Amino acid sequence: MTRFALTIEYDGRPFMGWQRQAHGPSVQQAIETAARTVTGETVAVHAAGRTDAGVHATGMRAHLDVERTITPFRLMEALNALVRPAPVAILACEAVAPDWHARFSCLARHYEYRIITRRAPLTFEHGLAWRVPTPLDGAAMAEGAARLVGRHDFTTFRSAHCQADSPLRTLDRLEMVQEGERISIFASARSFLHHQVRSMVGCLALVGQGKWSADDLQAALEARDRTKLGLNAPPDGLYFRQADYP
Amino acid sequence: MTRFALTIEYDGRPFMGWQRQAHGPSVQQAIETAARTVTGETVAVHAAGRTDAGVHATGMRAHLDVERTITPFRLMEALNALVRPAPVAILACEAVAPDWHARFSCLARHYEYRIITRRAPLTFEHGLAWRVPTPLDGAAMAEGAARLVGRHDFTTFRSAHCQADSPLRTLDRLEMVQEGERISIFASARSFLHHQVRSMVGCLALVGQGKWSADDLQAALEARDRTKLGLNAPPDGLYFRQADYP
Repeated sequence: MTRFALTIEYDGRPFMGWQRQAHGPSVQQAIETAARTVTGETVAVHAAGRTDAGVHATGMRAHLDVERTITPFRLMEALNALVRPAPVAILACEAVAPDWHARFSCLARHYEYRIITRRAPLTFEHGLAWRVPTPLDGAAMAEGAARLVGRHDFTTFRSAHCQADSPLRTLDRLEMVQEGERISIFASARSFLHHQVRSMVGCLALVGQGKWSADDLQAALEARDRTKLGLNAPPDGLYFRQADYP
Repeated sequence: MTRFALTIEYDGRPFMGWQRQAHGPSVQQAIETAARTVTGETVAVHAAGRTDAGVHATGMRAHLDVERTITPFRLMEALNALVRPAPVAILACEAVAPDWHARFSCLARHYEYRIITRRAPLTFEHGLAWRVPTPLDGAAMAEGAARLVGRHDFTTFRSAHCQADSPLRTLDRLEMVQEGERISIFASARSFLHHQVRSMVGCLALVGQGKWSADDLQAALEARDRTKLGLNAPPDGLYFRQADYP
């Protein structure tokens, strides 16, 4: 038995999310089906994070165990050939130790959230970014973002369906990069609550529009109350970028 | 009557090309249909260039004449609302002089061709770039590109269906920008022959792969013979970027 670690890119638009679902296509199912065809084995694929419907990945990590002898390169090539036409690509594949676990060994997760501020509808990036029709004040958003960094009770920014034991999380990075009409928000933490990045981004957009001050954002955080959430950003702009391991 | 100049972005994937076709959807038809609904008039939209099936635009220019009184902003907003869900966006709209012509007044046309060099299939950019599975030598390609700049008989790089009177064209710019696995080739001229950019890019890729030298490329140019064309690049990576006017 060999454990393989995969680095995966996917366009989340046609999927119900990462996780296998009874009622629609998932990234997990697409890869597991391809892996079963390659190996002849019933293969389970475990990811560093479970992205929601419509959320994308440029560097998701996952692992799977294969009994058959196969090189990482051949496995990658075969998965890429078989997963088509689903918009999923295996960018890298390596053999790892049998106790390496994509989810439990993960030390940090990195997301990017992409906003495009323009009136015109999106064409190439429809479903790949959040279009905000008004300009956003990037400096004000950066000031707001700084209030969220650190160890906090993020109950306000947590979905009602979140299954985590604790609402405490340490947000290591929440940084804005603005370039013309494009804003990227980079978020890093050991782990995130369900909807945490989208909820933080939604409220930062309110700050960028001048509807909220950085103090309002901080008050929402300190309220520890989901009903104080200003806005949950759509899945369109969210990308799982990277997972770190020892 | 007011003549309006439009700046248009479109994702060429679902279209048979710019020009209205009997057998499938076109960008021209999408905009003309929207314009007819806005104005109640039978409107003809004329573009700076006719892109082929699967070719994109980030800054196509076009014009249309409207009898009804309407502001440029309202016309733009209405077109954007009505053209959906087609991946077409009007980025700008202005009233121009009645003798301003998107095609005949155009002084220069600027294209970009995007290549991504990687083994894995494309996900987000499937149909939006040409995937080349092997690395390309950007310096060699730049040397080759320099041989094509200037005034030449581009018969070798001209489609059999080209309707231009003369194969003589002055290529003002053919420049490579390489960044990691991404290569953009920027091409500028007063006008291009049919398939000229794709044919030049296809041969430059042969140079980048080491299959052709810059001398081979120059020999193909000087042969003035379509059968000496090495490779025609697919439409996927081609973008009409900009048109210049007096």
